[in-house]
Amino acid sequence: MSVSATPSRPAAPVVAERTGEALSLSGGVGRIPIMAVEPVVDGGRFPARATVGETVPVRVNAFREGHDAMGVQVVLLDPAGTERGREPLRSTNPGLDLWEGSVRPDAEGAWSFRIEAFSAPYATWAHVAEIKVPAGIDVDLVLVEGVQVLSRVLDEIAAGTRPAQDGPRVRAAIDALRNHALSPEARLAPAIAEDLREALTRRPLRDGVTVSGPHALVVQRPRALYGSWYEFFPRSEGARFDPEHGGWISGTLRTAAEGLDRIAAMGFDVAYLTPISPIGTTFRKGRNNTLDVRPGDPGSPYAIGSAAGGHDAIHPDLGTITDFDAFVAHAHDLGLEVALDVALQCSPDHPWVAEHPEWFEVRADGTIAYAENPPKKYQDIYPLSFDTDYAGLYRAVRDVLEHWVRHGVTLFRVDNPHTKPVRFWEQLLAEFSRTHPEVVFLAEAFTRPTMMHTLGKVGFHQSYTYYTWRHTAEELREYLEELVESAPYMRPSFWPTTHDILTPFMSSGGRSAFRLRAILAATLVPTWGIYSGYELVEDVPRPGAEEQIDNEKYEYHPRDYAGAVRAGTSLEPLLTRLNEIRRDHPALQQLTDISFHEADDDQVLVFSKHLDAAATGTGRPDTVLVASVTAHDRGAGATLDLDLEALGLAPGTESFEVEDLLTGERWTWDAHPVVILDPASRPAHVLRIVHPEESLHV
Amino acid sequence: MSVSATPSRPAAPVVAERTGEALSLSGGVGRIPIMAVEPVVDGGRFPARATVGETVPVRVNAFREGHDAMGVQVVLLDPAGTERGREPLRSTNPGLDLWEGSVRPDAEGAWSFRIEAFSAPYATWAHVAEIKVPAGIDVDLVLVEGVQVLSRVLDEIAAGTRPAQDGPRVRAAIDALRNHALSPEARLAPAIAEDLREALTRRPLRDGVTVSGPHALVVQRPRALYGSWYEFFPRSEGARFDPEHGGWISGTLRTAAEGLDRIAAMGFDVAYLTPISPIGTTFRKGRNNTLDVRPGDPGSPYAIGSAAGGHDAIHPDLGTITDFDAFVAHAHDLGLEVALDVALQCSPDHPWVAEHPEWFEVRADGTIAYAENPPKKYQDIYPLSFDTDYAGLYRAVRDVLEHWVRHGVTLFRVDNPHTKPVRFWEQLLAEFSRTHPEVVFLAEAFTRPTMMHTLGKVGFHQSYTYYTWRHTAEELREYLEELVESAPYMRPSFWPTTHDILTPFMSSGGRSAFRLRAILAATLVPTWGIYSGYELVEDVPRPGAEEQIDNEKYEYHPRDYAGAVRAGTSLEPLLTRLNEIRRDHPALQQLTDISFHEADDDQVLVFSKHLDAAATGTGRPDTVLVASVTAHDRGAGATLDLDLEALGLAPGTESFEVEDLLTGERWTWDAHPVVILDPASRPAHVLRIVHPEESLHV
Repeated sequence: MSVSATPSRPAAPVVAERTGEALSLSGGVGRIPIMAVEPVVDGGRFPARATVGETVPVRVNAFREGHDAMGVQVVLLDPAGTERGREPLRSTNPGLDLWEGSVRPDAEGAWSFRIEAFSAPYATWAHVAEIKVPAGIDVDLVLVEGVQVLSRVLDEIAAGTRPAQDGPRVRAAIDALRNHALSPEARLAPAIAEDLREALTRRPLRDGVTVSGPHALVVQRPRALYGSWYEFFPRSEGARFDPEHGGWISGTLRTAAEGLDRIAAMGFDVAYLTPISPIGTTFRKGRNNTLDVRPGDPGSPYAIGSAAGGHDAIHPDLGTITDFDAFVAHAHDLGLEVALDVALQCSPDHPWVAEHPEWFEVRADGTIAYAENPPKKYQDIYPLSFDTDYAGLYRAVRDVLEHWVRHGVTLFRVDNPHTKPVRFWEQLLAEFSRTHPEVVFLAEAFTRPTMMHTLGKVGFHQSYTYYTWRHTAEELREYLEELVESAPYMRPSFWPTTHDILTPFMSSGGRSAFRLRAILAATLVPTWGIYSGYELVEDVPRPGAEEQIDNEKYEYHPRDYAGAVRAGTSLEPLLTRLNEIRRDHPALQQLTDISFHEADDDQVLVFSKHLDAAATGTGRPDTVLVASVTAHDRGAGATLDLDLEALGLAPGTESFEVEDLLTGERWTWDAHPVVILDPASRPAHVLRIVHPEESLHV
Repeated sequence: MSVSATPSRPAAPVVAERTGEALSLSGGVGRIPIMAVEPVVDGGRFPARATVGETVPVRVNAFREGHDAMGVQVVLLDPAGTERGREPLRSTNPGLDLWEGSVRPDAEGAWSFRIEAFSAPYATWAHVAEIKVPAGIDVDLVLVEGVQVLSRVLDEIAAGTRPAQDGPRVRAAIDALRNHALSPEARLAPAIAEDLREALTRRPLRDGVTVSGPHALVVQRPRALYGSWYEFFPRSEGARFDPEHGGWISGTLRTAAEGLDRIAAMGFDVAYLTPISPIGTTFRKGRNNTLDVRPGDPGSPYAIGSAAGGHDAIHPDLGTITDFDAFVAHAHDLGLEVALDVALQCSPDHPWVAEHPEWFEVRADGTIAYAENPPKKYQDIYPLSFDTDYAGLYRAVRDVLEHWVRHGVTLFRVDNPHTKPVRFWEQLLAEFSRTHPEVVFLAEAFTRPTMMHTLGKVGFHQSYTYYTWRHTAEELREYLEELVESAPYMRPSFWPTTHDILTPFMSSGGRSAFRLRAILAATLVPTWGIYSGYELVEDVPRPGAEEQIDNEKYEYHPRDYAGAVRAGTSLEPLLTRLNEIRRDHPALQQLTDISFHEADDDQVLVFSKHLDAAATGTGRPDTVLVASVTAHDRGAGATLDLDLEALGLAPGTESFEVEDLLTGERWTWDAHPVVILDPASRPAHVLRIVHPEESLHV
């Protein structure tokens, strides 16, 4: 049996406190208890994750007994263990002892953070002094105690544990406290002045310092969080029907490479190819997933393997590894990364079937088990079995992925990871995080939440989500709140459609639905993806199924993109603009910076994404506000109730400028603007808040 | 600085599986991931707790990839590490991969439990066979595979790892599978018969066994969970005004001991005494918490310490340690335990003030700091300071408690624990759990939830609660659900009033409020408490305060209990009956066995507590159903919507008998009975469900 790790009570070293104590307490709560630290995943069983430059929310419950003041800091440690920042957390809900702040790691690697909580003697004294001195209670005593407290600041400067800059200010305050010529209020004033208070909040005197951590924070490259994906079947790009022979000629990696220019021009970051390996012929599926295959039907690229090779081979119709290298090189020239589909299953013709029958389930009669969900049979697919020669199969799969990485693939979209053992992924992702930390894995786990979450916890960088099935404003808001909650271990990717999924919302809503769902996917979360044909509003389902009719999985599907652009019917301009907006606005490149606002129509979704100036990398704050319809067949007029603080605006701001990034229009808004939206003509406002400091320069 | 322990990722050993594998995976999720194990407190930072005989709910999310069947078991380990039970968990919400069950430890000590999840090959096969054989798909193959699977059962019997009892049944099933003379259905039938299926669910074939744990489960004596407390000021019992001298004569431990008979007769388990130590005279408080003390005013027993001694001494007016021993002996004779108040603060006259000024905060002018909340001063109280000589003070307090334990005290009610460092309690409770595991500590922490919860986590056996401020049916239901959630670390104690608390609900609702809130406290949770005078409906508040007028803290308060009983105005009969019902019904002695039911009047609270026959110790199931008004000034007629399963009744039960335990009435009810309640005459039904097997004997 294998033993799964859920921690039992750990021991922890204890370091004596400044205030001194003789008894040592091992592993206890410490002087100032720190509870419920976030981000910590499952009590530390899995590391929390972030990306370079991400603003990572930090949250704890910390408290002390009695009425003395306290403080909490988060200390960020780089992979070498060096302190790379120490920030105070703010008390955001005293009734719940909640303290909040953030960290922002600036490089990849195994970072960590710790929380330090402490009693704050200066703040305790200042609070008492403010009340007692004006009331004439214990005045001399309070002022003498002020001298004692502030002298500790000078001691720290003398000891070299505090920069000297606060020295003059503190010495002046002490002089005043001692100056009996002044009134009590005047003696006190410099010691509780705002600037000194701020300096001593920033760098407080600390007693009874208690530490929680270090807590792991694995930092990955930005593409793990933010990116725009474009999915396509390379064989469709450049495929053509040859009327002379009455058959199809497949597109190739060379013709597909030509399509990359258009994808790059739309502003996508990732070109994602469905499987490019040889396709089996045994039990090959025909058009529309039928069993009657006709000559020339190309078969599903998910039925991997033939005499021409397996997962590490290229379908002869598509070309050679040299063609693939050329494809990747052209993609890179265009600033595109290449993602490959990993579908760990085999056609009966896959070389592994003969060479490694132990990697499949062999039945009592000696045959290899095909996929089935009784009484349904999927005889064109042999699932892999991981319980016989786990190690051999593991190495084979790892080697396949290594092969593609050597040829320039930097992302993998993993097909149905939830049908393979979780620990297989755990091991594979752990190995790649050591050997190829730049490689990003996207889990196509359309399954139950525990599996989805666990795949994230064991290392998948991103996951497809339930976005496709969340439509109302309430559903979307709740779902986003859930995704923010799970951000430390699961990063969402939003796809309005895929080659497998065309929901009734999309097939009944036509162009309005396609526009609306693209706008929401592109702005709600930092990673979104589009399946080719979306530009053309391909919205016809196969009867009785929630997927496209004449599904590209079973046939060639060349498209006339340029013609649609000329005809003015293409969504390319919208997709292009959305990717441009995403690129221009750092706030759209993060997940947890989202806030929701109220509207008096429950079909209107209002949200904003905001980063402070310190977090954008531009020196300016960045705020995007979206107000959108959620139905594709009903307009809405709504009065909004905007949370100005969430928009980065000063409390009491009476009006501010907004610029619609889709139309270029500018308005002056207050906290309660009225919006008129219509799915066909104006499904949403995607607005930039023009912050006061910027509008001066416009 | 002290280091607080929040676990980082732990390593765990890995044992090879039955199905064999070459690569070892350290600390991973294992073959069948097990997530979110309950009860586990803060990822294992604190041990979960239970009491002897308690039915402890166990809950996990466990899942595997694909469609194969799986199972989950909980294994209970006694303090020696010996397996003391292995129970299957039931899949209660497949969509959430939720598995639930329970364990029931039968002795005190450091128990633990582990979770084992596994693939279940027999169940996988049976599911497939059931579909395929009737459909005529792969019939022979399926039946051969059945022989293979069932042969594993015989192998286990042969290997001695499974009792032989299933042998004949399995051999017969194998024979049938092989019997080509029969129809396929007849060959299959014995192999999927209900009895075999049940045997192989109870003791399944297991592949890929994955273990989570062991997880700590500290088991304490039943009184830590269940008990009825009666609080009183011993000096009031037998106190009398002497008209001759115009002054009061204090009650004594001897006169108080006489009152114990009445308390025992009411069915209480614990006699809880407010502090009995000497009371200081410096800045002594007068009646109604005033500063003008008059001669003869006895002072607050919470202003502890005088020339006569400190926390380990007895107030001379109350008697001597011999009197205390006699008091305890009499209590024990009556079946009562004695709880003492622990108020860690000193009057200025406490011996510690002179002997150990380092245990107090010494101010800049050399004086000792009294309690204050500026500008308010509490000059009669010196708080202890734990940051100067922590170890010395720790030992002194421990010795005080040891002293009282030596004299028969088995429970401590700790006054304001949230004004002392949490780690002080953590250390003290850890030491007592080793040296005196029978001693129960009740935290009077009327404070913010994080502190309350943390005090429970570090070892307090029980906590006062917000019950006093939860009145509506919705508030009570939500609060109980929260308490069930926190059951592994915080056990609630419900008090309708205390000597410090008389809410507006109680002071405005008179007798109805007192009856209603006693019934709810006594039935909602296993531990409740009553402050003396409750019998007499002492409901007059001090103007402007939410506590009793003429508070007993500052004066003698003898009461004529017998007179009230004679006059028929006493609540003694109700309290007596409630304690009797609690004693008769094991279901009322546990916390997490509560379920809520709906009523069509939101002022009616309906809940039940149910234990299965296996959990009661009586061999019979026990179910108590309560339907109660929640307002003291409004009756209600409501139709209930009862959850029959929660009542331990078979699904589809059309009618059942109930007996009102307060009135003796019996009715035949169905799932939708109508109740007519009135705060003055019938505030609640407290009903026993007469289970079918019992009604035969009635």
